[in-house]
Amino acid sequence: MSVDQIAKGFTEFYYNAFDTNRAGLAPLYRDMSMLTYEDKQFTGVQNIVGHLAALPFQRIKHVITKCDAQPSHPTNGSILITVMGQLQFDDSPAPMNFVQTFHLYPEGGGNYFVFNDIFRLVLH
Amino acid sequence: MSVDQIAKGFTEFYYNAFDTNRAGLAPLYRDMSMLTYEDKQFTGVQNIVGHLAALPFQRIKHVITKCDAQPSHPTNGSILITVMGQLQFDDSPAPMNFVQTFHLYPEGGGNYFVFNDIFRLVLH
Repeated sequence: MSVDQIAKGFTEFYYNAFDTNRAGLAPLYRDMSMLTYEDKQFTGVQNIVGHLAALPFQRIKHVITKCDAQPSHPTNGSILITVMGQLQFDDSPAPMNFVQTFHLYPEGGGNYFVFNDIFRLVLH
Repeated sequence: MSVDQIAKGFTEFYYNAFDTNRAGLAPLYRDMSMLTYEDKQFTGVQNIVGHLAALPFQRIKHVITKCDAQPSHPTNGSILITVMGQLQFDDSPAPMNFVQTFHLYPEGGGNYFVFNDIFRLVLH
């Protein structure tokens, strides 16, 4: 699979899990994983998924508008992904723009985990 | 220096060079470097800086509004940076929002080069 195909498959899986069952994101992170979520920073699967699961919206939907990917190392198979999209939540009438960067590491068998995750709303 | 300090120093240097002398960005890239600029992809210092230098605006100014950074590897010192900002160019009355992701690799002596570079305007 190409880097673009892996990025597309990962992001579709990620946002579907986020929008339907946030606790189901846990298998994508490891103890060394890092999340920057707006101005907060988290390390490790429990802290990261604990934060995501506790976000105070009931219904949320991510729509991807752009997904760019590049190999992030000459040989080790890691992948950098930057997603731009829109976020619709609860009864909010207008979607919000967001940007999220993922850095995926391979761990054999065609599987990847999230080493870096940086999320920002586009507010200006 | 912390990852955040390196990211701040790098991005200030990068955008100052971009806004004053785009050809001066060449020392930041290597032959293995990759640039995604909107829907176009470039590899190698000549192709990347050639594209940036040929962009059809005369005067441009980047203003950083958010700059998030994380170490992108457990041990090798590489750094992932996501920048959000505004771009003012030529006589355009309204600034445009942009997002740019840099992946920096160390090469000794406190120096870094850009391995990955993904640039997108935020248009929606």
